[in-house]
Amino acid sequence: MTPHALSGPADRRHPEACTIGVDFGTLSGRAVVVRVRDGAELGSAVHEYRHAVIEDRLPTTGAPLPPDWALQHPDDWRDVLRTAVPAALADAAVDPALVIGIGTDFTACTVLPTTPDGTPLALTPEWAERPHAWPKLWKHHAAQDQADRINALAHARGEKWIARYGGRISAEWQYAKALQVLEEDPAVYAACARWIEAADWIVWQLTGDESRNTCTAGYKGIHQDGAYPSPEFLARLHPGFADFPASRLEHPLSPLGSRVGALSRRAAHWTGLPEGIAVAAGNVDAHVAAPAAGAVENGRMLAIMGTSTCHVLNGAVLAEVPGICGVVDGGIVEGAYGYEAGQSAVGDIFAWWLRQGVPDHYRAEAEAAGEDLHQLLTRKAAGQPVGAHGLVALDWMNGNRSPLVDHHLSGVVAGLTLDTAPEDVYRALLESTAYGTRMIVETFEEGGIPVEEFIVTGGLKKNTLLMQIYADVLRRPVSVGASDQGPALGSAIHAAVAAGAHPDVRSAAAVMGSVERHAYVPDPARADAYDALFDEYRALHAHFGTGADLLLHRLRRIRNAARAATTG
Amino acid sequence: MTPHALSGPADRRHPEACTIGVDFGTLSGRAVVVRVRDGAELGSAVHEYRHAVIEDRLPTTGAPLPPDWALQHPDDWRDVLRTAVPAALADAAVDPALVIGIGTDFTACTVLPTTPDGTPLALTPEWAERPHAWPKLWKHHAAQDQADRINALAHARGEKWIARYGGRISAEWQYAKALQVLEEDPAVYAACARWIEAADWIVWQLTGDESRNTCTAGYKGIHQDGAYPSPEFLARLHPGFADFPASRLEHPLSPLGSRVGALSRRAAHWTGLPEGIAVAAGNVDAHVAAPAAGAVENGRMLAIMGTSTCHVLNGAVLAEVPGICGVVDGGIVEGAYGYEAGQSAVGDIFAWWLRQGVPDHYRAEAEAAGEDLHQLLTRKAAGQPVGAHGLVALDWMNGNRSPLVDHHLSGVVAGLTLDTAPEDVYRALLESTAYGTRMIVETFEEGGIPVEEFIVTGGLKKNTLLMQIYADVLRRPVSVGASDQGPALGSAIHAAVAAGAHPDVRSAAAVMGSVERHAYVPDPARADAYDALFDEYRALHAHFGTGADLLLHRLRRIRNAARAATTG
Repeated sequence: MTPHALSGPADRRHPEACTIGVDFGTLSGRAVVVRVRDGAELGSAVHEYRHAVIEDRLPTTGAPLPPDWALQHPDDWRDVLRTAVPAALADAAVDPALVIGIGTDFTACTVLPTTPDGTPLALTPEWAERPHAWPKLWKHHAAQDQADRINALAHARGEKWIARYGGRISAEWQYAKALQVLEEDPAVYAACARWIEAADWIVWQLTGDESRNTCTAGYKGIHQDGAYPSPEFLARLHPGFADFPASRLEHPLSPLGSRVGALSRRAAHWTGLPEGIAVAAGNVDAHVAAPAAGAVENGRMLAIMGTSTCHVLNGAVLAEVPGICGVVDGGIVEGAYGYEAGQSAVGDIFAWWLRQGVPDHYRAEAEAAGEDLHQLLTRKAAGQPVGAHGLVALDWMNGNRSPLVDHHLSGVVAGLTLDTAPEDVYRALLESTAYGTRMIVETFEEGGIPVEEFIVTGGLKKNTLLMQIYADVLRRPVSVGASDQGPALGSAIHAAVAAGAHPDVRSAAAVMGSVERHAYVPDPARADAYDALFDEYRALHAHFGTGADLLLHRLRRIRNAARAATTG
Repeated sequence: MTPHALSGPADRRHPEACTIGVDFGTLSGRAVVVRVRDGAELGSAVHEYRHAVIEDRLPTTGAPLPPDWALQHPDDWRDVLRTAVPAALADAAVDPALVIGIGTDFTACTVLPTTPDGTPLALTPEWAERPHAWPKLWKHHAAQDQADRINALAHARGEKWIARYGGRISAEWQYAKALQVLEEDPAVYAACARWIEAADWIVWQLTGDESRNTCTAGYKGIHQDGAYPSPEFLARLHPGFADFPASRLEHPLSPLGSRVGALSRRAAHWTGLPEGIAVAAGNVDAHVAAPAAGAVENGRMLAIMGTSTCHVLNGAVLAEVPGICGVVDGGIVEGAYGYEAGQSAVGDIFAWWLRQGVPDHYRAEAEAAGEDLHQLLTRKAAGQPVGAHGLVALDWMNGNRSPLVDHHLSGVVAGLTLDTAPEDVYRALLESTAYGTRMIVETFEEGGIPVEEFIVTGGLKKNTLLMQIYADVLRRPVSVGASDQGPALGSAIHAAVAAGAHPDVRSAAAVMGSVERHAYVPDPARADAYDALFDEYRALHAHFGTGADLLLHRLRRIRNAARAATTG
């Protein structure tokens, strides 16, 4: 099939040398085969996780999970290596011997307890029936109480690192989730030898050796200025938590793009790749997408828009921006401060609305037009003048990550009337996520980190109505990453650096990444109309999202108490 | 068929004497044949209006109607007399000669301009193409600006009557709607010889002579203490409006239950009823339902629950209750102050939610179970503990009639999460209307008008989940009017009084009406849980419904401007 069949592994300077990037998302994993010299994507494949997101019942026992839990199954991740990687190679029709490296990226903070050799506790007979033994997906939101206490104590003690996280550690992150395990199931915590990001765990599966990357350690693991939080601080949260980083996290950190090991025989067998090729340090899906979309220069904000949105942005200076997820020196590329912010749900909100159903005749209309329901509602909503639906929504159906860092918030829709149609709400939800993005952009700029360009990648970039709404709401052009598989391409770029085919991520990105600049430009009249609606969004944001005693928090407490009374 | 076939009209003391009640609703008219001696409902029939509610386009020209308009077609109403009355007689299998009277009730304020002989302008060749010539249905909400000016001026001038309407004349009522006609189409206003409630217009169709009833004149026509608003007041709204009541309303008022005329030959031909039988004064659907449900004694609040809810309540004293629709001496029965309040949408809100659609598999499940979608969502929602959905909604999808009297408000749903299901929102909407009712009950009690019993009639009384929610939210028993056609039965009771079969409405109601007392009683634990949620509803109510500059008003203005820009 290929004109370049080789008898052994290719040299990193071979003109057809390739790398593989593997992106582990929320519902599936995707592998892409990329040519090192020009970033050409030669083939790809997707593997849908068999267990998807585990929210209702534990797979082993069928026991119901409490509200706000979200777990995953480690075998689903390994299945991506076993199926999607060989399928991508087959799709690319390249000789596996041309592949010189593999890179991976993962959702974060998706984190799991393992034995000393990296075996997930969830896959051991002793612990498989304990919910806390299972990997906690990024959107596991049941550790908010722990996060609240971490934040309160950090401020009370004046911990320097708390400012690096916008003043608030998220309930989604390593420490809150680990503290929840310690407090709710100390036996599982005691059995946990390593508390590891899935981003690093999957690399362990590839190389056979533990490694830890600077990105997740910094953004999710509170590693700042060379250290984790002090034992004194942690002991105040719980006496048994004092040695948490020393006992379960501590490991030399590998910079992004570095080679952390060689592909093991076992992993070569799974993947069909040559044993011994370079394996790149683990990375986060959002951050690794930056080089793929030409977003490594300072001031270029990349929004990775899918079920949720992550915003990554490099800045020349270290600033304290309220409500950002974090800032890490070299967190995206070496030599810049990498900032991260996010929206906990974006595409998930649109999908949620469709799960409420559509009228019968809409379904028939979609079938007749050969559209899916997203396309149908998008088409129906596209023709509306700005504001004609009369709605403003708060995009907090999965909480607010930035700038409020509050996962006990929930969504609000205001302005409903008896003539409100499904496409009206749909459009209002699209717009609500654009308003949420504008809040984040403005927070960065007010914090002293300029946003000079707004670039989108991820699955939602193909929704042209959504992209135009973002341009109009943000009053600035929207550029679009050219690749349909930004994170996977980014991982392949990192793999190329790890394999030595390019000297560093910036130069690899210049060759292998690409972006369509200013693909959408704002319309002044629509932008003016959106300014007025954004004012209303901001008013709702302030009313429902700030203050000492929030209605949405009270509703959440009532809800959880009511559910606990029936399930408990 | 009947053992009592007669050769001529029956005497009012005939043991099998009957009356006919005809209830003109929002979407259909219903006739019921009732035995005078015991209120037995012998037969009934419904006629669905062919044009239903005209909201999108004028039937004659197809021209689009502006936002918030709602019209009806007079021929639809006459068709009820032509079809539903004979069908009810046939269903009852009674000799028409046994029918000694007919009574009617109507939605209000549904109002139309006519020529001097009562011909609707909408049915004349000269005016049929002018939207303002058409009957304005009660829920025509496009006269809010006029209502706002009426209210501001009434307060500025200290008009005594404004307090009788809770301080605010509704945009739904006669003066606001008439002023809209004058200002927006003065030619139609000039051609309008009589501005008449449909409640009185339909009686005109039956007798051939104009009559006006005290109920609509008082509640909707600002007739208080024997007079309409003064020409001086009206001239300040518009110079051409000064003689509005004198020229277009003024007519002797007929008390409720009185005989206003004899059935004309033409109407006898339409209906199959004996010419010359008693025709009762016109009435309003809500108010006429009181005698049918045993709700004529002071302190018994009757809620007529259908697409919207009207609350009627007799009190011994004249009190000024904020936000009530009105208080009229003898407005429900002679000898008591009749109070009215209302919720602009109730069943309409539940239907609106279903119009958003349901998931595919819900539809399949409903079909398999032989349920309609209301039944399906009700069943799914019924098992939830109070508060488990985490939602609170404002039931303002059609504005707020009581206590805020503001049709520029709109609905809000708070607490949405990615696991919010259609039945969660459905239940939250059921609850929101119960909270709205509790606001009204509390407003009456705080205003000095005790509510000693809460009685429900209307189509929604058969929803047992809804009734139980009302009992729990109100923390008081819910009694249920026994008849499935409360207003039509009430009209038949009025007809029996008009025909002389009973001396007055109270004694007729005692014999012909019936109620199931305390059909639902509150559960203390659920009532406690609802107290907490009602506090949240009250907080939303205050935030979104009161104050000088309301977000929902601003959204409405933005919406209307956006729509006008595209249709104009």
